[in-house]
Amino acid sequence: MVMEISRSTPETAGKVIRCKAAICRIPGEPLTIEEIEVDPPKAWEVRIKIICTSLCHTDVTFWKMNAALYNFGFSFVSVVESVGEHVEEFVEGDMVLPVFLPNWGECRDCESEKSNSCSVFGNRLSPDMPRDGTSRFKDMKGEVLHHFLWVSSFTKYTVVDVTHAVKINPQIPADKACLLSCGVSTAAVEEGSTVAIFGLGAVGLAVAEGARLRGALKIIGIDLNPEKFETGKQFGVTDFVNPATYGEKQVSEVIKELTNGGADYCFECIGMASVMQEAFRSSRQGWGKTVILGVERHGSPFTVSPGELLRGRTVIGSLFGGLKPKSDIPLLAQKYLDKELSLDEFITNELSFQDINKAFELLEEGKSIRCIIWMDH
Amino acid sequence: MVMEISRSTPETAGKVIRCKAAICRIPGEPLTIEEIEVDPPKAWEVRIKIICTSLCHTDVTFWKMNAALYNFGFSFVSVVESVGEHVEEFVEGDMVLPVFLPNWGECRDCESEKSNSCSVFGNRLSPDMPRDGTSRFKDMKGEVLHHFLWVSSFTKYTVVDVTHAVKINPQIPADKACLLSCGVSTAAVEEGSTVAIFGLGAVGLAVAEGARLRGALKIIGIDLNPEKFETGKQFGVTDFVNPATYGEKQVSEVIKELTNGGADYCFECIGMASVMQEAFRSSRQGWGKTVILGVERHGSPFTVSPGELLRGRTVIGSLFGGLKPKSDIPLLAQKYLDKELSLDEFITNELSFQDINKAFELLEEGKSIRCIIWMDH
Repeated sequence: MVMEISRSTPETAGKVIRCKAAICRIPGEPLTIEEIEVDPPKAWEVRIKIICTSLCHTDVTFWKMNAALYNFGFSFVSVVESVGEHVEEFVEGDMVLPVFLPNWGECRDCESEKSNSCSVFGNRLSPDMPRDGTSRFKDMKGEVLHHFLWVSSFTKYTVVDVTHAVKINPQIPADKACLLSCGVSTAAVEEGSTVAIFGLGAVGLAVAEGARLRGALKIIGIDLNPEKFETGKQFGVTDFVNPATYGEKQVSEVIKELTNGGADYCFECIGMASVMQEAFRSSRQGWGKTVILGVERHGSPFTVSPGELLRGRTVIGSLFGGLKPKSDIPLLAQKYLDKELSLDEFITNELSFQDINKAFELLEEGKSIRCIIWMDH
Repeated sequence: MVMEISRSTPETAGKVIRCKAAICRIPGEPLTIEEIEVDPPKAWEVRIKIICTSLCHTDVTFWKMNAALYNFGFSFVSVVESVGEHVEEFVEGDMVLPVFLPNWGECRDCESEKSNSCSVFGNRLSPDMPRDGTSRFKDMKGEVLHHFLWVSSFTKYTVVDVTHAVKINPQIPADKACLLSCGVSTAAVEEGSTVAIFGLGAVGLAVAEGARLRGALKIIGIDLNPEKFETGKQFGVTDFVNPATYGEKQVSEVIKELTNGGADYCFECIGMASVMQEAFRSSRQGWGKTVILGVERHGSPFTVSPGELLRGRTVIGSLFGGLKPKSDIPLLAQKYLDKELSLDEFITNELSFQDINKAFELLEEGKSIRCIIWMDH
């Protein structure tokens, strides 16, 4: 869908918008679709109309936790409806990809090539807007509804801070662009490397695709769902390890046998400390690198023996695949348009907004990589 | 001392040599200097006459442990007395630096630029010779005395495997060369970096010297011994943190204040898991790198929160500063001869062999960085 760009200020600018949203009222229970009110943007904020959104395991994790009155969703594409004071980067009609990872652009981290962790906005934890900690959502009784990861997309309109929004080329189809706001990372591995990927969800498959493009020799997928091997093959997975089929044998032992001593690169894409440790043990001595992409869900510590670290193994953590949203997402979008980056295979399902709870079921059943939810269908 | 090279086969070749050695008979008690027998070298081995040796904290650690009947010392310089079968790399009279880290030269790790962890000889643990696990030492009652870290230098003669020996330029003075077999590592940091070094022993000071040469902006030394600041200044240390003077305040908090958010590089040169964790917490989010050089003494695990890892921090372990003995030690020796590398300041004390127990005292009292022990004085 190529958006037509309109530069005129809409009638809704400066006013509260009433629209449909899917709200989590009871954790773990189906979201309720109801009317809500979305405030106009404050300074440094933009209000956006959502074209399509998607669901991630992180949504599911928080949905099951004590997260009532939240408006989930953080992987989506939108068009600017109106902008707040001081906003110069966006105008009405711009196609925008909101991102959970802030990118202010003027701190030491944002200015460095080595980091994607904004040192000014990256450490603020709030259930609502990053600058003043307040929400732009209310239900029809006037009760505050919270933003999720500073964005929130299970609504027809939302408000995001400019540090959390990236302008993208409107030529890229919205459903493909939607994948760029979470889950598509680049795997910086050398030609001929061996790669072990723990968890073949959208993030893990994106790592496989990246490793395949760079000429990895062996790409081993590790997942408890045996159907993931067939899916993984489309993204370059060459070998599959189902931990459930090895009895007492550690996955790291299996990986070491498959790679003659350990994988050059291990990616943890699940978010469990025990898996991170097993990924580390699966990496080879000398130069094995373990990249942690999953967000640990239970607060468990990552524990390894210093002796295992001493012979040149590395552990590195990465949010958003180490990408800087404002500079890297437009590059990835261009790669898609140039047919260098494959995104289409990630989209396994499409639903309309009123069926959003079905998307949760598909993900939980392992039947979906990315399900696109169209807001206007 | 420049060695004269003799190519004639000595009268001792093929025979047992009887010589003085300092043996650990009761852990933690003074070493006893006694007559021992040193067997001729077997295949792939060289027997060497030691010129001088030095003492490292690792010697002290093992000396206090359950390590009776050991011949300690692994940082020394020697001259080849005779060679075993198949030895082509060395001839009688060569000046040789033995090293605890093997470097066979023909495995995948030895051939890679990314590793210094020999995959064939690097994983064998034995108190004696690496190929057959037997000792070349006996006391006068015929009891076996063990090698230490495959080398052993508290004796006038020892036997080492060719994978544990590096030929060096005889122009470098023996006492300076002695420093190259342990403790002098290169700190690969960029100009303008902030560096925190935990533990200002010989390894920590070598890291400081390396960081200074590469133009680090701030080099923070952390040590419980306040005298180490004056010593450290000679090696480029600009700031000093004594953890004992901050009460309840964590060292990582102090480092974060000194570096505006955390050091770019943290080096752990002590070998305690708790210090490794504090070093990690002292590294900045975004790109902070923690390099573990110390060997953990108590088997404690290294534990961090995955959430702390997620924003681009790295942990890497390194033995022997990541150097490959056979290729890198000759380069360092040349740098010393070209006056690019400073080694002289590391030598704080010199003793003769019969006073070896005094070297243990000096190190334990924090009064010595490197004490050179001359075998023939």
